[in-house]
Amino acid sequence: MKHVHYTNVELQTPNVEGIKDTKLRWVISEKDGAKNFAMRVFEVGPGGYTPLHQHDWEHEVFILQGEGVAKNKTKEEEFREGDVFFVKPMEWHQFVNTGSKTLKFICLIPIKR
Amino acid sequence: MKHVHYTNVELQTPNVEGIKDTKLRWVISEKDGAKNFAMRVFEVGPGGYTPLHQHDWEHEVFILQGEGVAKNKTKEEEFREGDVFFVKPMEWHQFVNTGSKTLKFICLIPIKR
Repeated sequence: MKHVHYTNVELQTPNVEGIKDTKLRWVISEKDGAKNFAMRVFEVGPGGYTPLHQHDWEHEVFILQGEGVAKNKTKEEEFREGDVFFVKPMEWHQFVNTGSKTLKFICLIPIKR
Repeated sequence: MKHVHYTNVELQTPNVEGIKDTKLRWVISEKDGAKNFAMRVFEVGPGGYTPLHQHDWEHEVFILQGEGVAKNKTKEEEFREGDVFFVKPMEWHQFVNTGSKTLKFICLIPIKR
């Protein structure tokens, strides 16, 4: 059984266009023997955002801390701590931190994508 | 995109032997179109526990609130808010709330099991 506090996992800066002040930790991944899905914990600074993008795999998201808006190409929805998102394959999505503290959320993706 | 606060999802009492004061919400499941993995949020009262069991699928767990011990048949490890567990297939496991407030954790499982 792997057991770790999420803050003890390396905080990485993804090399992705269209992001601002977004970092993540791969807390459960293929390296741990996970064959079906990976768990990442994101940290987005005030005013920061993940990219507005789409891909052919899903996201399962849980907001741990902070607030913001989830956008697609036509609309946006406010979110807060405790909110859950299921982003289907090929849905456009972006998470923007509109609050004053670090936005933290869990985002799970399939290993095979 | 499904978007819901986890407390707005029905809190269910599982019909499982060997549990005490354990309830859960299926916040993302096959009903939402999830084909790879399901997200549940558990709530375990003080002194409560999930079953000591094993099965041929994995768990990915994130502790949202509270404290407790994770047990298998031979040892136990204390955990706290922000801890992450990867329980491999066939590993024995049990989560016990040893604190004074409700233990809340996310637990993900594969859809096909």
